[in-house]
Amino acid sequence: MERPLGERMSLLTDLYQLTMAACYFDQEMHEEATFSLFIRKYPENRGYFVAAGLAEALEYLSTLRFTKDDLDYLDATRLFRWQFLEFLQNLRFTGEVRALPEGSVFFKDEPVLEVTAPIIEAQLVETFVINAISLQTLIATKASRSVLAAQGRPVVDFSLRRTQGTDAGLKVARASYLAGFAATSNMLAGKIYALPIVGTMAHSYITSFPKEIEAFRVFVRLFPEIATLLIDTYDNAAGAEKAARVAKEMHGRGERLQAVRLDSGDIAAISRQVRDILDRHGLPHVRILASGGFDEFKIARVLAAGGRVDSFAVGTKMGVSADAPYFDMAYKLVKYGGRPVMKLSTGKVTLVDQKQVWRRHDDQGRMAGDTIALREEVLEGGDPLLQPVMQAGRLTGTLPTLNESRALFLEQFARLPEPYKALEAPPPYPVALSPGLTALQQQVEREIHTRELGES
Amino acid sequence: MERPLGERMSLLTDLYQLTMAACYFDQEMHEEATFSLFIRKYPENRGYFVAAGLAEALEYLSTLRFTKDDLDYLDATRLFRWQFLEFLQNLRFTGEVRALPEGSVFFKDEPVLEVTAPIIEAQLVETFVINAISLQTLIATKASRSVLAAQGRPVVDFSLRRTQGTDAGLKVARASYLAGFAATSNMLAGKIYALPIVGTMAHSYITSFPKEIEAFRVFVRLFPEIATLLIDTYDNAAGAEKAARVAKEMHGRGERLQAVRLDSGDIAAISRQVRDILDRHGLPHVRILASGGFDEFKIARVLAAGGRVDSFAVGTKMGVSADAPYFDMAYKLVKYGGRPVMKLSTGKVTLVDQKQVWRRHDDQGRMAGDTIALREEVLEGGDPLLQPVMQAGRLTGTLPTLNESRALFLEQFARLPEPYKALEAPPPYPVALSPGLTALQQQVEREIHTRELGES
Repeated sequence: MERPLGERMSLLTDLYQLTMAACYFDQEMHEEATFSLFIRKYPENRGYFVAAGLAEALEYLSTLRFTKDDLDYLDATRLFRWQFLEFLQNLRFTGEVRALPEGSVFFKDEPVLEVTAPIIEAQLVETFVINAISLQTLIATKASRSVLAAQGRPVVDFSLRRTQGTDAGLKVARASYLAGFAATSNMLAGKIYALPIVGTMAHSYITSFPKEIEAFRVFVRLFPEIATLLIDTYDNAAGAEKAARVAKEMHGRGERLQAVRLDSGDIAAISRQVRDILDRHGLPHVRILASGGFDEFKIARVLAAGGRVDSFAVGTKMGVSADAPYFDMAYKLVKYGGRPVMKLSTGKVTLVDQKQVWRRHDDQGRMAGDTIALREEVLEGGDPLLQPVMQAGRLTGTLPTLNESRALFLEQFARLPEPYKALEAPPPYPVALSPGLTALQQQVEREIHTRELGES
Repeated sequence: MERPLGERMSLLTDLYQLTMAACYFDQEMHEEATFSLFIRKYPENRGYFVAAGLAEALEYLSTLRFTKDDLDYLDATRLFRWQFLEFLQNLRFTGEVRALPEGSVFFKDEPVLEVTAPIIEAQLVETFVINAISLQTLIATKASRSVLAAQGRPVVDFSLRRTQGTDAGLKVARASYLAGFAATSNMLAGKIYALPIVGTMAHSYITSFPKEIEAFRVFVRLFPEIATLLIDTYDNAAGAEKAARVAKEMHGRGERLQAVRLDSGDIAAISRQVRDILDRHGLPHVRILASGGFDEFKIARVLAAGGRVDSFAVGTKMGVSADAPYFDMAYKLVKYGGRPVMKLSTGKVTLVDQKQVWRRHDDQGRMAGDTIALREEVLEGGDPLLQPVMQAGRLTGTLPTLNESRALFLEQFARLPEPYKALEAPPPYPVALSPGLTALQQQVEREIHTRELGES
């Protein structure tokens, strides 16, 4: 059995988290701190985000533990006193987490998650929590755009070979499924997350046979129910003719060829040509899958150019969110020991104190605007979005299944008005600050100016 | 103890690798195949690549094994016959690998690695091998540019929180160190790869104290030898004055403040202002570290604008290779059963057969041009770059240490003429094809046209 995530990942943190923790320990600063996790700005061509990765963050928090091996390493750095290492040995996460459920649609500046715990615990977990939630949120957001562009056609994940590492490979499969993808080629993700799996064949498979058609014949004999023949190895039209021949041979055995795959060239034109060839051979049921450098932009272009594609395999560009490979996601201290806090660093002002996000809908049920408020404020006519998910270091209930999170996303996404989903240059969705938050923000800012800038 | 990499990752592959393998098994196709791993084109602003990730790929190959649990999962998909699953149970990687040593500088179309093995083995490992080598090569290449831009100033890795997952977090720390970074904030990478670790403090640390200067004082008391004070939380100039006061208090105790950190605003201007403040207080030894959205471009801009920065912390943009978040790296079958093979797909023609790369140097030892040749060709006046690293599934020798690979990179990089290192729009380094490869390429292309395109 693999060790729990929180044990394997306790050192997946920055050195400064540990040196700061040692300072808090030395000063006996064990009061409660609240940190807010949020995205500071939209990358180009993004107007919404899809929350994902919470389950992993909670798994980490609920199993966090420094093992003897970790402590030995820390000791060997000669930076830490033994009293602090002894403290770390007994450290568990005992705090509270409030969060948007996975699959939620959210916007810039809105907390995705708030952690409240003794400051050492809340601080130490920063690195892992950002890492986990920013990756899956990045990918779910990116993947949702391919699903949108495909206009109901199935989209599948072929990204594993070029994701940024193996952990990303797994998380990309999960997050893209959450955002509406139909399946993945990734077998380990299929196993771990119980995802539908899908596959075709490679050019190497074709070229390893003396003749292309023999490669086709062998494959359909072994996998008659899941055969998607790759037809571009030498020439698409010639490949389509051979696939048609094989499809007719299958007919003779009472089988049906599922699909052909196009992987290069002008997909809009080639797909029409291949569709014609298949139809001419009486094979209207043989579907066309397209792959090769697809993302939401290429899907939209191919469909706009009249491409006859029935499903899309999306790989690298989704798997690394190529046009926006990171979000400016930050985890900021907003309250410590009952005192609301903020920093003033140029261009990076944060919203103070514990918060809640309220969402209003219009009379057709469409999202009409959000307000970020202080946690205790109650706003009329809206629904609060952040929910308690962990208390005293334990889950408050059963987490949604991945399929439930996927359903939540699809339901919320349907309520987001079309303009905010535009693939290019979407307008900003309206997010306001409540009167209570605005007033407190101004008050804290004034206090800091007096305290820190008057004195030096 | 953790299970070996090749056991944990045996299912980290695409479904089609397994269905194709089942076809080969069914057809008793067990002849030797050679696959070449190479990068098809340069992303914008790249004119060279830095090979990295080989050690991980070899660790995977030498421990590859399908466990009972994996086989149970495959069985549950109902796609595979028991004879094939039994075959997988006994499958080990028994092949040969030739590769560029980690740290090698290489160019587009040149093989980074060639795998020769019975086709099922060579095919199944494709996904993991590309994943491992493409990530570290991507990051080492990106990181080398920051080192170059910093002109000898130390550059450190602060990327962990926003790398694409935890595996990437580790590999980024390793690959950036290989490419000349001085240290990482990533503790787990520090432990696993024995990397120098480094850290400062966060804004949350400052804001958790009633006064900024108290936060400084506590930190330097605990960590007098590694203290880098973050001074931009409220105001850089005011922060610098407080840091100077703390530095003088340290002097009184016989200690020296190491550095201050700037993290926002116009770093060129602020660093000059902060340098003046520190110098005015008689603290010329206190260094200035800059962080916040740095990559090679921002480093170059800040230095060109007269920034007085002594070292750079580089995070997200290096950690995801933001301006080029993937390479078009492919693993292509080039020979099977003694027969050179290729595909013709539009724009994706591959170079046939087993290959070697030869490099020439000018009389000052500078790199003067490479030639891609057939493996058995011998080219006068050059050095062969691909080396045997695995035979019959076992390492042929001891792998270089990470520090040795780092030294190899720095030595090779020094030999690459400056124009090819330009941060923007570098010219293409000369890479030629040998006469033998050119002739065979043309011959195979003609044969395919006759065989596959004449017949349909």
